[in-house]
Amino acid sequence: MSSKKSDRRDFLKKGALLAGLAVGGAGAARSQGPEFETPSVIPPGEKDPALYGERSHFVKSVRQRMGKGDGFILTPLQDSVGIITPNDLHYVSSRDSSPYTPPTEIDPEKHLLLIHGMVDRPLIFTMDELKRFPSVSRIHFIECVANTIPTQNRWDWETVQERQGKMSCAMWTGVPLSVVLKEAGLKSGASWLVTESADSVKHSMSLPIEKAMDDAILAYGQNGEPIRPQNGFPLRLVVPGWEGVRHIKWLRRIKVVDKPYLTQTESSINPSLKTNGKALWYNFEMGPKSVITFPASGGRPLNGRGYYQITGLAWSGGGLVRKVEISTDGGSTWKNAQLQEPVLRIAHTRFYMDWQWNGEEVVLQSRCTDERGAVQPSLAQFSELWGVKPDYFKTTTNVVTHFNPIQPWKVDRDGNVHNALWI
Amino acid sequence: MSSKKSDRRDFLKKGALLAGLAVGGAGAARSQGPEFETPSVIPPGEKDPALYGERSHFVKSVRQRMGKGDGFILTPLQDSVGIITPNDLHYVSSRDSSPYTPPTEIDPEKHLLLIHGMVDRPLIFTMDELKRFPSVSRIHFIECVANTIPTQNRWDWETVQERQGKMSCAMWTGVPLSVVLKEAGLKSGASWLVTESADSVKHSMSLPIEKAMDDAILAYGQNGEPIRPQNGFPLRLVVPGWEGVRHIKWLRRIKVVDKPYLTQTESSINPSLKTNGKALWYNFEMGPKSVITFPASGGRPLNGRGYYQITGLAWSGGGLVRKVEISTDGGSTWKNAQLQEPVLRIAHTRFYMDWQWNGEEVVLQSRCTDERGAVQPSLAQFSELWGVKPDYFKTTTNVVTHFNPIQPWKVDRDGNVHNALWI
Repeated sequence: MSSKKSDRRDFLKKGALLAGLAVGGAGAARSQGPEFETPSVIPPGEKDPALYGERSHFVKSVRQRMGKGDGFILTPLQDSVGIITPNDLHYVSSRDSSPYTPPTEIDPEKHLLLIHGMVDRPLIFTMDELKRFPSVSRIHFIECVANTIPTQNRWDWETVQERQGKMSCAMWTGVPLSVVLKEAGLKSGASWLVTESADSVKHSMSLPIEKAMDDAILAYGQNGEPIRPQNGFPLRLVVPGWEGVRHIKWLRRIKVVDKPYLTQTESSINPSLKTNGKALWYNFEMGPKSVITFPASGGRPLNGRGYYQITGLAWSGGGLVRKVEISTDGGSTWKNAQLQEPVLRIAHTRFYMDWQWNGEEVVLQSRCTDERGAVQPSLAQFSELWGVKPDYFKTTTNVVTHFNPIQPWKVDRDGNVHNALWI
Repeated sequence: MSSKKSDRRDFLKKGALLAGLAVGGAGAARSQGPEFETPSVIPPGEKDPALYGERSHFVKSVRQRMGKGDGFILTPLQDSVGIITPNDLHYVSSRDSSPYTPPTEIDPEKHLLLIHGMVDRPLIFTMDELKRFPSVSRIHFIECVANTIPTQNRWDWETVQERQGKMSCAMWTGVPLSVVLKEAGLKSGASWLVTESADSVKHSMSLPIEKAMDDAILAYGQNGEPIRPQNGFPLRLVVPGWEGVRHIKWLRRIKVVDKPYLTQTESSINPSLKTNGKALWYNFEMGPKSVITFPASGGRPLNGRGYYQITGLAWSGGGLVRKVEISTDGGSTWKNAQLQEPVLRIAHTRFYMDWQWNGEEVVLQSRCTDERGAVQPSLAQFSELWGVKPDYFKTTTNVVTHFNPIQPWKVDRDGNVHNALWI
């Protein structure tokens, strides 16, 4: 760390940082700032800005539909700072394939959660009743199982938003699922849950009871306010570190059972089909993974040689991010990035590295290692695990989920950045 | 902790928690949830919800104007969960007294920051240039120096929003001010800064250079997106733990000087006048302080005897919150609350305590102790520090800032909650 700091100081001392920035002297000030008109009454038709603030109309960052009908709405990672995703920009992945389905809107006064099956006391809760239970607040990422999925003509998605945007991070507040299950009383042999949503799709998934009793949350809060409708208002199951598809939105039912159930999503959509005809089932945990968000394809280009701070996000469903390494020479050498404290369990971890760009073409990569020592693979290593050549992923129509290879970005001499995964 | 947990389990086992909640059996389920219609096209006149999500129209929580013309816009703390304040609900305190002034909107392409005075190299930065510097992201509270101010006929403000709502918490992203000052080069004798805003008020404050070089941030990000206009878009000075009034919004100028300057705000508005005719000057740091946000005046009332989780927020400009104690018997006994991990330096700290309400009238209080051992005073202790009787604060027209006494809430038998500070 101290050597990194002195590196940075060296950049500063050498004047290589932001060349041309200094003005000749105090008298050379370009301006002392813009001038403003501040009307003293609300213009007709405008709302009182005191009640609910809005972002600047100069800020244009928005989510993106992946395509008509596929239900993926992607977070603009190229504009991200810190580790919190604003609620209005949190990614959405929907089982409902209607292209323009508005968010499911549930009246919280009418919403009920049923806990039944292999329990001593079947229970039904209103939202007010749930909110009387002990609560917790934890920052966790959620990543769609299909984030970065290379199949089905999606292998050449280009920008960081398209490639990695099915992934966000928020502070989730709610009741530990374990508290409610203990209240219901688990019968002998109870080992799995089947969880179900209240929207038109009735999306349903299986969940091992060990995970439910460990750290799952019946969440009603997201970043200090009620969860947004697109993310499950008024109640969402948060299953830290596991596939986003298991974080059931609009949660209305939990049945305690003694085996996994092959729900429609689990049996027909989500298994990763391997080349030998077999499929990966019940592959729950996401990561380890990382992505550089600046410089990145779809973000602002580099503006000439000189100092830049490379930054990005790393995460692992396995717990803490222990290390992020960055290569700025196409993978020949790797240096440890600085991790923004506090590093939190199963949360986005913001990383940084000082970098001096010489103006030449370069490939940038980041590699995440989590607290268990699991390392994000290269595309070659990931392909080897699958027993295929990398080009397999460009052509297969099989579903390849949990796709977490290192994401290389190529910086051109003009400062533009491109996806270089397949190079 | 382990004894607290067993207490909670006892509540559960005794069935005292959420009495009447259990249903007779699986067959007695009241309902399996509401039914929905999901249109497959966007209704005419509605926006594509994919691009920028909105909150549920069932959620009504909003800020509140303190009064016409005083420029205070208060966070709805009664609805808060976790430690993040949503950006649309972050408190606003404005020096501009026009009652309906819309937020200052600055074009970030035109905004400039000037650093001059006792520096080797006067510098001017565009926002793009500033964003090339090394950045940090930190969660910090900001509290208005006048939060909970009892003077000027404001002593009887009733709800938690009115009493404590000039206080919020966010993840701020930006450039350490120290980095930019080192780039400019401080001349011998440089010991203070004068900082200035770009809005019509040209709000200006003095800042000791030690604080500037320690942890102050030139912030452009708030909770993962650009700072909102009302909180200083595109650039705000964040001075962790110090009076909100020093976190200059729309920051456009920093002059390095050799002494504090008596700016208009510092000399005419902010000093706390004491009864002996003297004034407290340059009283920077906020807290230690805490407030119970549930149960609290203005929040949802209690619904009958039984289990509740008392929860609230604690903070200190002095660093970490070390301890929060709660009294549920009018101050006779105090028990340690549980602190939500991670506890962060100069950030809101969410606290919890299991509580069994017997249905009788009761006074609830919380008391914060920070890492230096500084303890939030009672009103009696605070009055003693001032050399006055508590009633002084009801009648004086002097400005009493940094008002941090323990906030008692009285719970009536009907479950309604009231401010009990002056009892």
